[in-house]
Amino acid sequence: MPHDLQDTIALLSRTPATLNALLRDLPEAWTLRNEGQSTWTAFDVIGHLVSGERTDWMPRVRMILEHGETRTFVPFDRWAQECDSQGKSLSELLDEFANLRSKNLAELCAFNLQPNDLERRGRHPDFGSVSLSQLLATWAAHDLTHLHQISRLMAHRYREAVGPWSIYLGVFKCSGHSS
Amino acid sequence: MPHDLQDTIALLSRTPATLNALLRDLPEAWTLRNEGQSTWTAFDVIGHLVSGERTDWMPRVRMILEHGETRTFVPFDRWAQECDSQGKSLSELLDEFANLRSKNLAELCAFNLQPNDLERRGRHPDFGSVSLSQLLATWAAHDLTHLHQISRLMAHRYREAVGPWSIYLGVFKCSGHSS
Repeated sequence: MPHDLQDTIALLSRTPATLNALLRDLPEAWTLRNEGQSTWTAFDVIGHLVSGERTDWMPRVRMILEHGETRTFVPFDRWAQECDSQGKSLSELLDEFANLRSKNLAELCAFNLQPNDLERRGRHPDFGSVSLSQLLATWAAHDLTHLHQISRLMAHRYREAVGPWSIYLGVFKCSGHSS
Repeated sequence: MPHDLQDTIALLSRTPATLNALLRDLPEAWTLRNEGQSTWTAFDVIGHLVSGERTDWMPRVRMILEHGETRTFVPFDRWAQECDSQGKSLSELLDEFANLRSKNLAELCAFNLQPNDLERRGRHPDFGSVSLSQLLATWAAHDLTHLHQISRLMAHRYREAVGPWSIYLGVFKCSGHSS
């Protein structure tokens, strides 16, 4: 199942509206609750997605196209939202995510990438040589990993409340591997 | 973390728009692909959610309120969508889900349930005595378990395409427990 650029863009373009429909104006008992200890809330996850739009995905795309493997990607700060989300509401973060994603996809589309461009390579600080195709597939899968995480961390709240039904609900068997 | 009726309704009311934003007009390479063997596609999951709205959640709520523990719930047919979704498009199923959910929540709200009502009990074919509160918490957690499943089964498509990044993506570590 190879990477398909148009399908990746179709998915990436839908994530802001999906998270907006799920989370905007939802009671904070859902959006500000985590799975215990240092796990993330839905609010934290949206801050992390904003951070990715700002510092990770498109800067790496540009670096591959401009510098190939001669420069190494800046490591992604997975905790940047701890500072950057301070003082913001969830609605503000959802708006910020939607605006940044829209601009980033407009820039990506403007590159008019061809199949041979997708094979161009960059340098990841841990993995070494990676392709533009792998980076773009990861961008889409990263959206899905965090939608997966949000659905799990919100369900956690009702782990006890569902009583005996918990054994039928697969989300309760997911052991926090999508942080 | 006890069950909260208003928070449950807030979540249940958002699921149709969430799934609509994620899935409507998304390429079929995302929506008609499964995780292999007899696993479900996103299309199958929406059919299952339609089926739950039609035959499971509100019929059980009504049965508790009308008959208490004197009648046993009709077992939920988890494969009903195999017949019921035949010949329908994903857009039709999304519309059907949204319409049924909206009607069901209107009926639920009209009951004007009070805290003591939530402690009323019914009879589950496997579990025996269960409370209305547990049933309603399960309805919400069931939405989340299937959002969790959809994000995982769609990500599955890019399991290879992401290359070395797969080790960072928790969704690939989720072993199909939310069917």
